[in-house]
Amino acid sequence: MDIKRSGDRPSSQGSRDYFTGSVRIEPLFQAPPPARVVGASVTFDPGARTAWHTHPLGQTLVVISGVGLAQREGGPVETIYAGDVIWFPPGEKHWHGATAAAPMTHIAIQEALDGKTVDWLEPVSDAQYRKS
Amino acid sequence: MDIKRSGDRPSSQGSRDYFTGSVRIEPLFQAPPPARVVGASVTFDPGARTAWHTHPLGQTLVVISGVGLAQREGGPVETIYAGDVIWFPPGEKHWHGATAAAPMTHIAIQEALDGKTVDWLEPVSDAQYRKS
Repeated sequence: MDIKRSGDRPSSQGSRDYFTGSVRIEPLFQAPPPARVVGASVTFDPGARTAWHTHPLGQTLVVISGVGLAQREGGPVETIYAGDVIWFPPGEKHWHGATAAAPMTHIAIQEALDGKTVDWLEPVSDAQYRKS
Repeated sequence: MDIKRSGDRPSSQGSRDYFTGSVRIEPLFQAPPPARVVGASVTFDPGARTAWHTHPLGQTLVVISGVGLAQREGGPVETIYAGDVIWFPPGEKHWHGATAAAPMTHIAIQEALDGKTVDWLEPVSDAQYRKS
């Protein structure tokens, strides 16, 4: 049994290569092989969002607080609320983030395939974001 | 992209075969193959706890609220707090639950091996629980 206490887990600012705006990432867990699940708490300031991306084995988001946005390529921008759970299938191009007015925190859960949990793509432009 | 809204996910009372006391289980997600991660939000009333059990690929708990207890076989009973993240390796016999005085809610995350995420064992007796 290993306990990582609240406050003992370093967080970092999301890279400008993969995020727009201010995003705080706190790694929560990374199960060692043969397990493969990885989780992080991610907090988006208003207006902040991920770049477009895909996950080799999909991704689950559990929205913890605030109001956010999520979109799969070709679909509508959906508003997501605390308590909502969102699933993106393997390879589905998508993004997620805060609304323009409110911050949003979610737990993001992915499984690693060949050591990789995400493939990053181009940023979500202001024009794409404003459609939301 | 699939969104399960808060309030649209049925919850159920934990079975007396696997839990002592009042435990509310709300399934959050079950990623379809080739993914294999499963998650649930579990709320324990004061005094309530799981039976002893193991997980074939381990288990991660993210404590969301309250104050709880967790113990691996042969180890001390540990008090766990909101924000703590606990990892039990594959096959490690353990239990978790609320304290006698306070409820506790955690998200529990497991990976399925051959369709199975847990092996249930004997209850945590009142004598074992009172040692905490």
